[in-house]
Amino acid sequence: MKQRILTGITTSGTPHLGNYAGAIRPAIKNSNLSNIESFFFLADYHALVKCQDANRIHQSCLQLAATWLASGLNPEKVIFYRQSDVIEITELSWILTCVTNKGLMNRAHAYKSLIDQNILNGLDKDYGINMGLYNYPILMAADILLFKANRIPVGRDQLQHIEIARDIAIKFNNIYEVNYFVLPEAYISKDVEILPGLDGRKMSKSYNNTIPLFECNSKDLYKYIMSIVTDSSKPGEYKESKNSIIYLLYKAFSNHEDSSQFYKDLNQGMSWKEAKLSLFNLINREIEPMREKYIELISKPSFLKEILLNGAKKAKIIAQKNINQVKEIIGINDF
Amino acid sequence: MKQRILTGITTSGTPHLGNYAGAIRPAIKNSNLSNIESFFFLADYHALVKCQDANRIHQSCLQLAATWLASGLNPEKVIFYRQSDVIEITELSWILTCVTNKGLMNRAHAYKSLIDQNILNGLDKDYGINMGLYNYPILMAADILLFKANRIPVGRDQLQHIEIARDIAIKFNNIYEVNYFVLPEAYISKDVEILPGLDGRKMSKSYNNTIPLFECNSKDLYKYIMSIVTDSSKPGEYKESKNSIIYLLYKAFSNHEDSSQFYKDLNQGMSWKEAKLSLFNLINREIEPMREKYIELISKPSFLKEILLNGAKKAKIIAQKNINQVKEIIGINDF
Repeated sequence: MKQRILTGITTSGTPHLGNYAGAIRPAIKNSNLSNIESFFFLADYHALVKCQDANRIHQSCLQLAATWLASGLNPEKVIFYRQSDVIEITELSWILTCVTNKGLMNRAHAYKSLIDQNILNGLDKDYGINMGLYNYPILMAADILLFKANRIPVGRDQLQHIEIARDIAIKFNNIYEVNYFVLPEAYISKDVEILPGLDGRKMSKSYNNTIPLFECNSKDLYKYIMSIVTDSSKPGEYKESKNSIIYLLYKAFSNHEDSSQFYKDLNQGMSWKEAKLSLFNLINREIEPMREKYIELISKPSFLKEILLNGAKKAKIIAQKNINQVKEIIGINDF
Repeated sequence: MKQRILTGITTSGTPHLGNYAGAIRPAIKNSNLSNIESFFFLADYHALVKCQDANRIHQSCLQLAATWLASGLNPEKVIFYRQSDVIEITELSWILTCVTNKGLMNRAHAYKSLIDQNILNGLDKDYGINMGLYNYPILMAADILLFKANRIPVGRDQLQHIEIARDIAIKFNNIYEVNYFVLPEAYISKDVEILPGLDGRKMSKSYNNTIPLFECNSKDLYKYIMSIVTDSSKPGEYKESKNSIIYLLYKAFSNHEDSSQFYKDLNQGMSWKEAKLSLFNLINREIEPMREKYIELISKPSFLKEILLNGAKKAKIIAQKNINQVKEIIGINDF
């Protein structure tokens, strides 16, 4: 049987180059393997936990749909849907809520780090914490278990959430004496690209050091790349390239041979300006055709909607079959 | 505009005479008033919080549907549905979860009394507490707010839950700068009948002192009534009737004139046996035709299902319209 891989995409931001190289590109590559069945979903209900700006949620959802499709996600080959179009997820979430020990949620890292901070600041431990954040791991368990997904690609920070999903699945299976839910496994890719941002720290929205992916024309991309911080070594001088932002970005967008050459060129005195120009050309060459597709897609919201609704239709066939089985198990069944 | 009144019925037990006189009968009477629009729902998702016995949930749901209909609820006049058939409730529940402060849940009485008990027993404060119980007030808020219900008939122990639903509604309206949700009001009936059970304490499943309503033929009802505890006063002797179980039950099933006469008769020496026989006849006269209807209904699950699905259809017209408006407000809308 095919392995089911499920990937959630939180719809609160605008994708940047780091997201592309670290998540989007490898996930799409994997989705083309023949022995797997891929589910990709825009996690708009998760986005509500942190974002209460309706316009942001709406825009991000559009941008992400267009981004993934422009980057090569094939909606005929994978199941690509918006979380909120598969309402059965919230239904399962409530059912799982009723088999989840509160203690399990108390141990979730994201929650714990917030209470630690509150205590440190002399505040009530639950100060400013919303129930969405606290319940988040249960909704995530529902996302996964509803589709009996086998593997969930995650970063290390999400590892615990997969463990929680497993715990909840086991608890349900035990309470109702069934072997119903599949225990999901976390999949941490060994060679995830973590791109440096403009200032050298990890490229991240929270550091305000990102280079936008498609919401950025080639002129802007050029400006961004020219603004990357470098050391003060002059043209002709040896450059310590190993940890330079320019080299690391170059490496993420080229093959081994080309990046080795680039490395040597820097060592041998290529100027930073010249290096930045090469880097710009390299990235722009990869991005440009996709950016054009992105611009076309983002201008056709109703087309994106149709693709997502088609995906939801496929997802719902599985979701409805499974939720009905779950309801049969718990006694909320047909008379 | 008509007032909307919403009544939830938790599907974990089998109705007894106390439920009938205290809740079912007055609610059905109210549902016939012309200036109100009544919603009645079988709260099977709430039942999961306390009951993980699938068979019990299933049976209780059937029994309650048959009980309310046999007792005179008119499904053409009210909207009578099963909570789990209106999946939009769980969707709204998640949306409300994301605007609810954790502190609000920490202050809920039902949760607080459990942690107090745990602390008293030297256990971890959240020992044995499940997330369903903790989140229960949010699901209840969703039940109410989804239909913009104005009045919720509740017992005193549920008063806080209506306050929480109001708090959540206000919070949502504030965050999204809308005047969307209607603030529900608790409605505590002044003359709720609290029937004594076989031992004189309040009739309640937890005291094991109940008289079943319809799951009890007239012969069994007779036996139950004959087993009621009385004092040892003999036939012909004066009887302190005011607080006697027999008198209180009689009063709940008769008009003022008849119950006054019964009171006098007891004072003047009517034997307990005679009094019990009168009481049996009185109750059985009211119950018998409904019991017959109940037996007929409970033997036709598919007929009950049809009635509930018809109710859900009516409820869903309102639920879908409202959830779509809510989703528009929070940014999870049509492209």
